[in-house]
Amino acid sequence: MRPVYLDNNATTRVDPDVVEAMLPYFTDQFGNPSSAHAFGASVGAAMKKARRQLQALIGAQFDDEITFTSGGTESDNAAILSALEVTPDRTEIVTSVVEHPAVLTLCAHLEQVRRVKVHRIPVDRRGRLDLDAYKAALSPRVAIVSVMWANNETGTIFPVAKLAELAKEIGALFHTDAVQVVGKLPMDLKSTAIDMMSLSGHKLHGPKGIGALWIRRGVHFRSMIKGGHQQHDRRAGTENTPGIVGLGTAAELALKFLDDATTRVKSLRDRLEDGILQRIPNTCVTGDPMERLPNTANISFEHTESDGIPHLLNRVGIACSSGSACTSGSMDPSHVLSAMKVPHGAVRFSFARDNNEEDVERVLEVMPAIVEKLRGSTGSRPRGRSPEGVRSDLCLSGKRTGCRS
Amino acid sequence: MRPVYLDNNATTRVDPDVVEAMLPYFTDQFGNPSSAHAFGASVGAAMKKARRQLQALIGAQFDDEITFTSGGTESDNAAILSALEVTPDRTEIVTSVVEHPAVLTLCAHLEQVRRVKVHRIPVDRRGRLDLDAYKAALSPRVAIVSVMWANNETGTIFPVAKLAELAKEIGALFHTDAVQVVGKLPMDLKSTAIDMMSLSGHKLHGPKGIGALWIRRGVHFRSMIKGGHQQHDRRAGTENTPGIVGLGTAAELALKFLDDATTRVKSLRDRLEDGILQRIPNTCVTGDPMERLPNTANISFEHTESDGIPHLLNRVGIACSSGSACTSGSMDPSHVLSAMKVPHGAVRFSFARDNNEEDVERVLEVMPAIVEKLRGSTGSRPRGRSPEGVRSDLCLSGKRTGCRS
Repeated sequence: MRPVYLDNNATTRVDPDVVEAMLPYFTDQFGNPSSAHAFGASVGAAMKKARRQLQALIGAQFDDEITFTSGGTESDNAAILSALEVTPDRTEIVTSVVEHPAVLTLCAHLEQVRRVKVHRIPVDRRGRLDLDAYKAALSPRVAIVSVMWANNETGTIFPVAKLAELAKEIGALFHTDAVQVVGKLPMDLKSTAIDMMSLSGHKLHGPKGIGALWIRRGVHFRSMIKGGHQQHDRRAGTENTPGIVGLGTAAELALKFLDDATTRVKSLRDRLEDGILQRIPNTCVTGDPMERLPNTANISFEHTESDGIPHLLNRVGIACSSGSACTSGSMDPSHVLSAMKVPHGAVRFSFARDNNEEDVERVLEVMPAIVEKLRGSTGSRPRGRSPEGVRSDLCLSGKRTGCRS
Repeated sequence: MRPVYLDNNATTRVDPDVVEAMLPYFTDQFGNPSSAHAFGASVGAAMKKARRQLQALIGAQFDDEITFTSGGTESDNAAILSALEVTPDRTEIVTSVVEHPAVLTLCAHLEQVRRVKVHRIPVDRRGRLDLDAYKAALSPRVAIVSVMWANNETGTIFPVAKLAELAKEIGALFHTDAVQVVGKLPMDLKSTAIDMMSLSGHKLHGPKGIGALWIRRGVHFRSMIKGGHQQHDRRAGTENTPGIVGLGTAAELALKFLDDATTRVKSLRDRLEDGILQRIPNTCVTGDPMERLPNTANISFEHTESDGIPHLLNRVGIACSSGSACTSGSMDPSHVLSAMKVPHGAVRFSFARDNNEEDVERVLEVMPAIVEKLRGSTGSRPRGRSPEGVRSDLCLSGKRTGCRS
């Protein structure tokens, strides 16, 4: 039986057209783009094309605003470190408690070794940023605000355009980790006040090991990785030309499939959620029911341990996760769900254009027995007739709550 | 006519077998290695295999001493920054004047923003490190010594094993950029006092965008790129699994072709050098004639401008360079040749296993006319019968010098 892959927020399958586009750059047009001879020149044009493909997807004003990196983590690190370097008189960072470790781990490090003050803005039970706390943290001491566009675990979307406007008022740079958004939602960076944005190839059917940092023209930037003069001194090191070509192609395809991502993929996700909520009592969709990525379902199952469901689903060929891939294997509860005060036992199903209705049916078929088994084994199975599962808006309203509150 | 590629120190053609090995990791085994499900597990085993393939090539004692990075530049940066972080009471760096920009640019930055003291050890006219100056710079204030194993422009090999022993005596870490050596010379790291070593995939017929930092077990290390717990907290960010598999395969092939690299490839290089020295007067091989990479020829042509020859060779389908790729396009003289007091007009021809005798003949066929043309055009053609070209040992002895001294 075909395995079912529903962990697309961890990584995606590279589109075969992307691989096809990359191939000539391994063995044929393999030159170093910095070389002055013909072998170098031909790959320079390919990098230019990739920048334009990405520019179209993210709605950037200029293609030279795109700097290629090794991935989302490097992009996040580079954006924050640059901001501190170019504004040495500003020593504070504003971020959220639910950021990716690429931001949180760096911030903790900077706090420790550089005495940077970090404001971590809390979220409510739907994962929404506390706007009052955000405004209160903004001051002329802030070098950079780094708030993700959408959360990788719950799919909750943050109002980054508005947050960026507020950051601009106090002269701070605004960076957003949009690794989970690029290719899933339409984007028009040029019409926002965002200064820098991170993205990653392997989250949008491009290759691993390539990503980008979009840096608005006019934003002063200093490279994190120092060395040669590649990419206008913004990122040293020989450019990963096959990866860059792959990312460009992935961007072009993502733009082509953007309607599919917001309609068909969303309907698959909704069908899974509805199916689970209907079939399995004491379940609850976490995250903001209104502002949420179209591909992500994060469902909390009362009376189950966090890794139990993904573990049993894996045995029947279904891949999903209990949190982000970056924290898999750790038995600690997800920092995102902890911040939202969601009890353990949440499972993330994340869709992509490879998925179909059969995948949804497969999951729905096996889930009731798996949850039953886990609830039975923990000895904590609820007595009596359980209420139907609910979406978080209801769940949190207390009207039909199936969640432990 | 088949183009002749003699710029393998800038980058190499990816071996088709490497591409073949990578392919399944794009579209089939595409999982995130951090994922707990089956899609993740299968790529974990592939990464382990790649570490072992690399371990065999470099003679490392343990495969877990290898951390994958995005390339040589990142590896160099990470090694130096880690050393400063783990030994905060030591604030000096020892390096050489002829290092790659990945080391020199970072050092200049650290000098400026962190007030680190940098000792840049000079070289003599053959590119050999001044050992007395090196010893004099070593003190308990030194956090790390970073000296390349072999120079990318001239191929001159540094006595890193000995340099590492001296560094060890004063308790400093020893790092070497071996990007140009791995796959060209046999290596047995476990028998040396070297602590960290950088290497790059695309210099040994592997893909661009992947490299490694070898960190001897027991050496305290802090990651430069902060984020998730990948690679035992030594390098955050989703692993570039196709790149890692490609690098592993490239390493296995490099080990297989190591004899070819030190014999056949060397004889091609020697044949080109001899042919040019015989045919063209006032030429001189730069670098250390005794300790030199087997694939690199750096030849100085008196009375020519530095970019003239590569430019005219490019027109007839022959790729070589006037310096490193990282500084191409810049009209500044190479910092390596300047440090060696070699006059302008040097050309680097760098060979690899793809090359054959026909490539050498093609270059020898066109070179005399090209040099003649350039010398004529500058109006500085030497009068009278010019001496034959010479290798640098003779050249520098002054016995048969054809070089401006």
